[in-house]
Amino acid sequence: MKQTRTIVLKSRPKGKPELTDFEFSTSEINELKEGEVLLSTKYVSVDPYLRGRMSDAPSYIPPFELNKPLASGIIAEVLESKSSDFPAGTYVVGMLQWKEKQVAKTDGLLKVDPDKAPLSAYLGILGMTGLTAYFGLTEIGKPKKGETLLVTGAAGAVGSVVGQIGKILGLKVVGIAGTDEKVKMLKSEFGFDQAINYKTTENMSESIANACPEGVDIYFDNVGGEISDAALFNINKFSRTVNCGAISVYNNTTPPKSISVHPFLIKKSSSMQGFVISDFTDKHPEGMKQLTEWLSQDKLKYTETIRDGFEMIPQAFLDLFEGKNKGKMIVKL
Amino acid sequence: MKQTRTIVLKSRPKGKPELTDFEFSTSEINELKEGEVLLSTKYVSVDPYLRGRMSDAPSYIPPFELNKPLASGIIAEVLESKSSDFPAGTYVVGMLQWKEKQVAKTDGLLKVDPDKAPLSAYLGILGMTGLTAYFGLTEIGKPKKGETLLVTGAAGAVGSVVGQIGKILGLKVVGIAGTDEKVKMLKSEFGFDQAINYKTTENMSESIANACPEGVDIYFDNVGGEISDAALFNINKFSRTVNCGAISVYNNTTPPKSISVHPFLIKKSSSMQGFVISDFTDKHPEGMKQLTEWLSQDKLKYTETIRDGFEMIPQAFLDLFEGKNKGKMIVKL
Repeated sequence: MKQTRTIVLKSRPKGKPELTDFEFSTSEINELKEGEVLLSTKYVSVDPYLRGRMSDAPSYIPPFELNKPLASGIIAEVLESKSSDFPAGTYVVGMLQWKEKQVAKTDGLLKVDPDKAPLSAYLGILGMTGLTAYFGLTEIGKPKKGETLLVTGAAGAVGSVVGQIGKILGLKVVGIAGTDEKVKMLKSEFGFDQAINYKTTENMSESIANACPEGVDIYFDNVGGEISDAALFNINKFSRTVNCGAISVYNNTTPPKSISVHPFLIKKSSSMQGFVISDFTDKHPEGMKQLTEWLSQDKLKYTETIRDGFEMIPQAFLDLFEGKNKGKMIVKL
Repeated sequence: MKQTRTIVLKSRPKGKPELTDFEFSTSEINELKEGEVLLSTKYVSVDPYLRGRMSDAPSYIPPFELNKPLASGIIAEVLESKSSDFPAGTYVVGMLQWKEKQVAKTDGLLKVDPDKAPLSAYLGILGMTGLTAYFGLTEIGKPKKGETLLVTGAAGAVGSVVGQIGKILGLKVVGIAGTDEKVKMLKSEFGFDQAINYKTTENMSESIANACPEGVDIYFDNVGGEISDAALFNINKFSRTVNCGAISVYNNTTPPKSISVHPFLIKKSSSMQGFVISDFTDKHPEGMKQLTEWLSQDKLKYTETIRDGFEMIPQAFLDLFEGKNKGKMIVKL
């Protein structure tokens, strides 16, 4: 039986994940059965939410098992097929295991067209990332033209798309990111009105107030923690906070403390709402259509940080927590 | 010119308000002009939200001024009138000053009918309290029959009504209060399914889990602080938190810290929303109609803690923060 390289979860991270939490091993490639395809991995998405699955605390998706392969969004090519719908040469995207090759059922696979967009886009702007930005902003943020949108993790995969959609919808858009280079990129590449480098800002609440003189109507939050505390002091009456991610606290070993949100929400008749992209499964086709249209009209740009080689997957994942990515972090095989 | 006893804000409370923050003085009763009435105060409502107005921090209503009369919801009788709509003998409710007598314009006054309900009810179940419970639960809590509702400050003016409306709407209702007597009252008088005494409970999160074996779908929060932290561990997917009050932290001098809500909201696609009753001004008549109907059908009960005499107003207010009230705290003159 043929073998393939695999990455398994060696130990559940305590706090910040380390390379030693991952192990490279080999596993057997199963025999191809009817309705299955043999896939060759091309692009692997690494995302902050995977950190949650590495713990065994209950969450919205089951935890990874120890000593079993990890999995994430993957673009793969069909090498051999026992499914007439997915002939050899087809490219697919799906939630697949961290293996160089694998046999998979075709149920959970979607075909992607390399002529319509670069393959990696289907992991980002035309994939979960783009849909997360789109539905988070439109369904939960409920934007009204002329309002002020504040986005954290603004140079990240989701944040950079949120800001651009905000501009398309007529919002004033302010982003928060962690390097001067990212801040510059937000303004020059992605059309943000203002951007703040939180690492060189002493008083975040004041900086936000300066960048958002009319207050914050929509706070699209990818980070949680102290930056979210600072945002609270700037929310407007009837403002909406979109709780998309909390990367700043995902590695905490005990529940982190923040400024108590309740008095702020009461004072401002303000709301906060968390979501995951599967909450909007029914609407995915609508979202995909809109994103594809904007992309083809050059209204949306995207940035990727691409690492090279299967063996780079764990490090690419760790680098997310250091903010070393611009836009979507992807590993190319 | 005639004079009247008045209570003014002597100093802005630092932390917990004290009797010395209030001062009794006398002020002159203005001459009655066209369109005005001379009022004699009958019932004075004291409410936790007044604490906010005693600070000079920006909030949803302007702060009280130092050395000026305090004000709250008051039932008064018209003694003399220069308004044909409000003849002498009429009873009214309005946001009035803490004075035994006062001249007021009739703009902000509503007539109340002492034959339809006891006068004090118009400060509570048929007033701001009842409307707060009604709109908070129906508009923000969005209850669905069979869901579990957890209410804090459950024996308070708002909480006791929220729980009863919850039962009318077919919810399982669990209340949290601060004495065994209140816990007993919630179950025997107000029909709550379960009640928890937070002062004698070591592990709140566990107690909530036991009382709500199917988790919490609606968390109607009047208190904030540690109890709200404990509630977070028990919220269901798509649950709603109604941020109505945060009495446990109103006296804090620096923004209080709580467990960071963001990761919980994300995991559970859960929402939190603050409100004040004026957000629903357009719908007040609808709410009043429903509450009056339920009251006349004996579906709603209410409890009042009535203190006697103008000079008791400050102490009655302070006692709110010690949980010395059952239901609506009112001072009768």
